[in-house]
Amino acid sequence: MNFLEERIVKDGVVKPGNVLKVDSFLNHQMDIALIEEIGREFKRRFSDKHITKVMTIEASGIGIAAFVAKEFGVPMVFAKKSKSINIDGDMYVAEVESFTHGNKNQVIVSKRFLLPGDHLLIIDDFLANGCALQGLISLAESAGATIEGLGIVIEKGFQLGGKVIRNLGYKLESLAIVDAMDAETGAITFRAQEER
Amino acid sequence: MNFLEERIVKDGVVKPGNVLKVDSFLNHQMDIALIEEIGREFKRRFSDKHITKVMTIEASGIGIAAFVAKEFGVPMVFAKKSKSINIDGDMYVAEVESFTHGNKNQVIVSKRFLLPGDHLLIIDDFLANGCALQGLISLAESAGATIEGLGIVIEKGFQLGGKVIRNLGYKLESLAIVDAMDAETGAITFRAQEER
Repeated sequence: MNFLEERIVKDGVVKPGNVLKVDSFLNHQMDIALIEEIGREFKRRFSDKHITKVMTIEASGIGIAAFVAKEFGVPMVFAKKSKSINIDGDMYVAEVESFTHGNKNQVIVSKRFLLPGDHLLIIDDFLANGCALQGLISLAESAGATIEGLGIVIEKGFQLGGKVIRNLGYKLESLAIVDAMDAETGAITFRAQEER
Repeated sequence: MNFLEERIVKDGVVKPGNVLKVDSFLNHQMDIALIEEIGREFKRRFSDKHITKVMTIEASGIGIAAFVAKEFGVPMVFAKKSKSINIDGDMYVAEVESFTHGNKNQVIVSKRFLLPGDHLLIIDDFLANGCALQGLISLAESAGATIEGLGIVIEKGFQLGGKVIRNLGYKLESLAIVDAMDAETGAITFRAQEER
């Protein structure tokens, strides 16, 4: 197990309905030393890439993406979620369906901060069905930016998002891939590094 | 002028209606080197305080608060905005009025991450009327936590929030206090350090 998988086993809580709660260290309360280590690990995994900007989506991706950007020495931009249909022409817009909340949202980013010359590393905390990540990919494509890779902290390997995005040809790195969870025993099965 | 005021003069844009856009470096695209410097400056200003946790509210406070927490070597917790009235008993809840959007929202934080023994430094990017900050203060009081201080990146000195919170007796430090803006000339008047 790597440092993140060990932490998930120690402090993560499995809830019925394939819910994995990591809010004590990742997406509500944040253990900053762990987030720094996550930043260094993404730098290591994408060290062969020329990255000019790190991109994420509010809210819980922001703290992680900020430390990844620090490692690369580049700016970070976060897309915003918006319900408003009244977006001015200065924004790229993508539609994102939320299975959790059963509705559609727009994600937006200013055209000033996503440029054709940008080489992006896209970061998020969770990947399940991949809707949020596909929204970010769509924004990057609208700008004509190059996506050098995508980095996810925890991927739910039993949902389709990771497979879909890898099949599109992107380099997608997930620090932990959860292949199964048992709410009764609390057991978590990670995908072995070799199988990635 | 300090480092932040210099950056606001260089890259901030004054818009009609007392709007100050700093989205190129603070709250949409983030200049991480600047955010790190902001973290170090808050550490300096609250170096006499015993801080056990940094608290903020999603979304744009998260990146800043994460680097402040790094300086203090403590965890960071961010309150979440919620429209739902269906909050379970594990959460502290405060009502926050948004003048910008003309509605009321709830801000929530898990009771597990805000403890009576916590000594909090509350961080946010902007302070205008102070509604968001008062929501965070209310959450901290619900938990019986001690508020050691509040740190704001940019305060709009011509709105009442800062005055109200200082009158409550809290140590409130704003790295830049904008006392006036002129959308026609783009001129920004900062409050002198001595007047703080």
